[in-house]
Amino acid sequence: MAAPPPPVIVLVRPQLAENIGKAARAMLNFGLTELRLVSPRDGWPNPAAGPAASGADQVIADAAVFADVAAAVADCAHVYATTVRKRGVTKPVVTPEQAAGAIRVGPGRSAVLFGPERSGLATDDVALARTIVTVPINPAFGSLNLAQAVILLAYEWSKAEALAQPPAVELEPPAPQAELDGMIAQLDAMLERDGFYHPADRAPTVRRTLRTLLTKPGWSAQEVRTLRGVLSALDGAKRSRG
Amino acid sequence: MAAPPPPVIVLVRPQLAENIGKAARAMLNFGLTELRLVSPRDGWPNPAAGPAASGADQVIADAAVFADVAAAVADCAHVYATTVRKRGVTKPVVTPEQAAGAIRVGPGRSAVLFGPERSGLATDDVALARTIVTVPINPAFGSLNLAQAVILLAYEWSKAEALAQPPAVELEPPAPQAELDGMIAQLDAMLERDGFYHPADRAPTVRRTLRTLLTKPGWSAQEVRTLRGVLSALDGAKRSRG
Repeated sequence: MAAPPPPVIVLVRPQLAENIGKAARAMLNFGLTELRLVSPRDGWPNPAAGPAASGADQVIADAAVFADVAAAVADCAHVYATTVRKRGVTKPVVTPEQAAGAIRVGPGRSAVLFGPERSGLATDDVALARTIVTVPINPAFGSLNLAQAVILLAYEWSKAEALAQPPAVELEPPAPQAELDGMIAQLDAMLERDGFYHPADRAPTVRRTLRTLLTKPGWSAQEVRTLRGVLSALDGAKRSRG
Repeated sequence: MAAPPPPVIVLVRPQLAENIGKAARAMLNFGLTELRLVSPRDGWPNPAAGPAASGADQVIADAAVFADVAAAVADCAHVYATTVRKRGVTKPVVTPEQAAGAIRVGPGRSAVLFGPERSGLATDDVALARTIVTVPINPAFGSLNLAQAVILLAYEWSKAEALAQPPAVELEPPAPQAELDGMIAQLDAMLERDGFYHPADRAPTVRRTLRTLLTKPGWSAQEVRTLRGVLSALDGAKRSRG
């Protein structure tokens, strides 16, 4: 079965066009492009949205306007309502992470409703949704703005997308153990000569401590070569001083 | 072993005090309170930070200023550098989720560096970190602002906190099966009487379809009672019409 389409973001009676632009920007950062607006207070299209979208112009240009929530989600199989606090409604309440997982499973298209900046979704809007999404937030300070709520949902949704694969790590592997051992032996010979391992009965413990410490970084072969150069330089300095 | 303290958020050479305020607000939403500033461009304290903090005043008031990154992270065991794009540096690159997990394991205090709005962290700042955090983002549109980068890190960190427990679901359990069966029987008798199960050889299939459909919602006992009321009303209407 094909994966469900990405979720539709529905802003219900948004107040400021600037916040619509910010929401569009938040969406596109994480690969969401379908924005629907229910009765935006200041009309649509609105020139204040563009600058706030910071380049997410296509999302703004494609945004569709609807007269009510029911029309905006008419083609969606699953409707999620985001709320900051629990209400008297008896519906499942999930985290953005759980919602993103369910949206990805589908089957069918999902819509996520976000309410007006000041008041949040009305009870009647929430009633249209099967599931409530609530961001778990500091109980002493809940102050998420609209674009932030959108970005958390989009971010969670994107995690299973290709773009959300852990970035390729361009690390050199640690040097082969023999090369590390060569470096440790070089240092050990220098320390032995300089009387570092004194008293002698402590030497095994001190050597083990040093080995642990030098193994921990996982230095690459190049780094081990660099460090051997450092040791050689110190050794030469010591010899010439000595 | 005690859990490590929450991470310190370090804003390196932030340009606008308004963005410092927004970052403070983003932090406090997810329970982070320790903000450090390295050479804020417009000085500190700065009156433009307060309004943007939207009530996260204590975070702003407690923010400490440092002359350079090294001083700001001097007491931290782990330093993470957030970058949007990969650089030539060879360090592990992790997602916010992975970083949050590691920060929580510790041991010791972690600091997360965020660079100036326009340019991001300088190479020398990144060099002080052991690990790079990169938000996996739409490769065709990467436009996260400072507060958004901070909020994603704080959000991921908060997931393991008590505040991030899935909110309690106040759902009524589905009605006992016998009550559902009672409702189905009521409907069935009405449909039987009205000749709905015609032709007779299709009746078992139709009945199974109806049962599946009526079982799926998991209606509560109260909802089943309501629906039985609906059926009775329909039945009465039918009888009086009939």
